[in-house]
Formats: sequence, structure tokens, C-alpha cells
Amino acid sequence: MPNPTAAILIIGDEILTGRTREGNAHYLAGELVKVGIDLRQIRVISDDHATIVAAVRELSASHDQLFTSGGIGPTHDDITADAVAEAFDARLDVRDDARAILAAHYAARGVDFTPARLRMARIPEGATLIDNPVSGAPGFSIGNCHVMAGVPNIFQAMVTGLLPRLTGGQPLMSRDWMVMVPEASIADQLRALAETHPEVSFGSYPFVQEGHYGTNLVARSTDAAALEAGFAALQTAFPEGK
Amino acid sequence: MPNPTAAILIIGDEILTGRTREGNAHYLAGELVKVGIDLRQIRVISDDHATIVAAVRELSASHDQLFTSGGIGPTHDDITADAVAEAFDARLDVRDDARAILAAHYAARGVDFTPARLRMARIPEGATLIDNPVSGAPGFSIGNCHVMAGVPNIFQAMVTGLLPRLTGGQPLMSRDWMVMVPEASIADQLRALAETHPEVSFGSYPFVQEGHYGTNLVARSTDAAALEAGFAALQTAFPEGK
Repeated sequence: MPNPTAAILIIGDEILTGRTREGNAHYLAGELVKVGIDLRQIRVISDDHATIVAAVRELSASHDQLFTSGGIGPTHDDITADAVAEAFDARLDVRDDARAILAAHYAARGVDFTPARLRMARIPEGATLIDNPVSGAPGFSIGNCHVMAGVPNIFQAMVTGLLPRLTGGQPLMSRDWMVMVPEASIADQLRALAETHPEVSFGSYPFVQEGHYGTNLVARSTDAAALEAGFAALQTAFPEGK
Repeated sequence: MPNPTAAILIIGDEILTGRTREGNAHYLAGELVKVGIDLRQIRVISDDHATIVAAVRELSASHDQLFTSGGIGPTHDDITADAVAEAFDARLDVRDDARAILAAHYAARGVDFTPARLRMARIPEGATLIDNPVSGAPGFSIGNCHVMAGVPNIFQAMVTGLLPRLTGGQPLMSRDWMVMVPEASIADQLRALAETHPEVSFGSYPFVQEGHYGTNLVARSTDAAALEAGFAALQTAFPEGK
């Protein structure tokens, strides 16, 4: 059975204007590999209602799982919950379970539960909450779409709570091998390796270090024995690597 | 006249498997802001021919400019040129001008011009070359699609050569203001500011620093006078910021 597929949708003008370097997709990509969910696409879009609705509809229909990051805070530009609710034709309103979580969180810290904060208790009908141990305000899963915060430590905490709920597959394993030769010098041998080890994916990533050309080689497979065989062949082909 | 729009397409399994943290999109996003080209989408996809063809067709049709990164090296998994040529229904073959550039580059460095390296002289018919002052092998522009290398220093050098060729618009300007209060505490005032300054976009980005909640506020506009007025109002509303 093939692994489940996934897409990540990052919502935020701050990424598209170059202000913030996105890191949540990179974090989640590493976690998905471990649980055998194949990430097929990462997409970054702006804080625009119609754009979010269209992207959520498209990506949730074409992947087994969709993860979103950003736009679920208390301010006027936090419009992700509204857009996701519309994408799934679900009603959005303050929900008692989410309000109770927020009320308890703020009460324990002596913080006012203001109308702006109540906005974060707006959850689509039928959605399951995603726990936020950092700042209280929950994310949610509706259908195959998992809506999480953009603040990195909150996003990571939500991913930790969410992933055990999802059905994974065969984890993708990898082995790295670095050679201090230009990529072009090894292209033919690498192509031959790829042909003789069809269950292994070989990637090559050139770099320049203090004026010297080198290449990072990566063998990847969901089959442990095939990976070891392919990696042994890689080491034999390029014995000077490390 | 509205600014031209753009999308960035990043091609590479190494991003989707969490091995590499992508940085080229972040770099280019910052450069596009300066020349007044509005970045609307960043998309990361895998090294798969059909996926690249479909994404290039979709994103080049829906944006004024499309920039790609990755997959134009000498190895078997470098398939971007083939896919972009197909997306534009153009013939792909070794081109004399690209071959001459590579021959001169390698001759000057005493490096063999191997068949694997010749692969990098395959350029779609009708495309314009993009100079690569770092390692010789050029990128290319076909239609509104600009195909560049994934290695960060080569990508940045190509962007530097390419951008002056493109038609820009009004640069998006921004001013930052940091306040040491939680985002929810300022949500109402921020919404009011957004309503009274419609030509300014106000963003708020919460953070936690040594246990204290803070919010970075950003005012953005293509209109310098509107930006200064909006930013002055922001400073008046939150005088403790810096």
C-alpha cells in the first residue's frame, strides 16, 4: 500500500514580503518523513480570504492530509478559521469547548478574557480541537485539514499532539555521503547506481566550501534492506567520501 | 497601475523530505519587494516531470512572472529544463551559445568538458540565457518563466543579473514597531488603525521571549506618505514600542 500523501499550506503575507523566513514547513516535513506520510507540496499564500478558500479546497481534495500554519490569532488579519470553515461548508462560531479551554488558561494566569481573545474560540462545526499547551488557543482538524498556529513553538507543540492521531505508512529512511568532487564528475556513476537500485532514490546536492567543489549524496528508500544495498554500492563507487 | 505579480516554484525532493531548509524563496521575496513585483505564491514540488510541467503551466498562466529554483545541474535527477521546455511546447537541445559559455568557463579553469557537463547546455528554443558568474552553467528565461539554479550562491547571482531586465512597479515599503504586550491586547486598536488607514496594511506577529509575550507590528504600503501617516498613528497608539 502506498504511503498517505500530504500538503502543507502556509498562510501569511510576512513570508511573501520576505520579512520572515518560514520554518514551520521545514519542521513538519522532517516529522512527516518519520511517520511515513509523503509530503508532496508546500504552498505559501497571502492573507486573502478567497485565496485561502480556493487553496484549502484544492489541496485537501488532492492529498490525504492537509496541514495549515498561520492566521488563527486574535487580530483582524487572522482569517484562516473563517476561510477553512467556508472551504468545508461548515458553520463557524464560538464553541463552548474551546471557550472553556481559553477561560481556564487565562484564569490560571490572571489574564483578561477579552473579546479579541474570544475570537480564538471560533471553531468550525464538526471540527476536532488540536491542543495548544503553549498559549491555550486550540487549533482544529476538519475533514482531512489540520489548522495550526504560525508561531513556531506553538506550531511544533500542535504537531506533536496531532501526528499520533493520523495514519502513517512506511517511514522514508536516508543515508548521506559527502564527496569533495564536483557534481558533474559523478553524474554518470550516479545515474548507473539509480538504474541498478530502482527502489532507492539517489539525490545529489552540490556545494562550494572555501573555494572547493563538493557534492552531498543522499540515498533514500522506504525499504531498509534496499537502502543498505544501495548505500553500500554508493560507498563502493565513491570510496573517498565520508 | 497595479504592480506585476509573481510566483516562485521550488523544485526538489530534498526540501519536501525535510533534509534541506529552503532559503532561495526567502531571498527572492526580499528582492521582489524592492522592485515592486508582488509575490503571490511560493510552491515547493518534487522532482517529478509531470508535476513540474503542470505547475509551470498553471503558475506562468496565472502570474506575470514565474521564477524557478533547482533541477538544472548535470545529474539524472536534474529534469527542470526538460519539463519547462515541455510546458512551453519548446524544443530542448544543446545550444551553441550555452555550449560556448561552458567551454570557455571550463577551459579557463582546466576542467574537462564532459558529456554530463554538456547536459547543462541544453536550453529551450527561443529562451534567453541568464548569466551564471559562479559556475558557468546558465539559467534561462522562456516566456515569463525564469529558470535558475538551486545552489544558493548561484541562485542569488542569477537573480542579480535577471531582475534589472524585468518590469517592476511601486516598491512595497514597510516600518516595524515592537511592543512587549500580547497580540490579543492590541487587536482592537490595530483593527481601528487598519480601518482608518486603508492604504496601509498592518500585520502583527506575536512572539515569546524569555517568558514574556511581545508582538512585532509591521505597517506596509506602496505609498510613502500613507505609510508615514499610518506608522505615526501606530506609534501614537502604542507609545511604549520601539
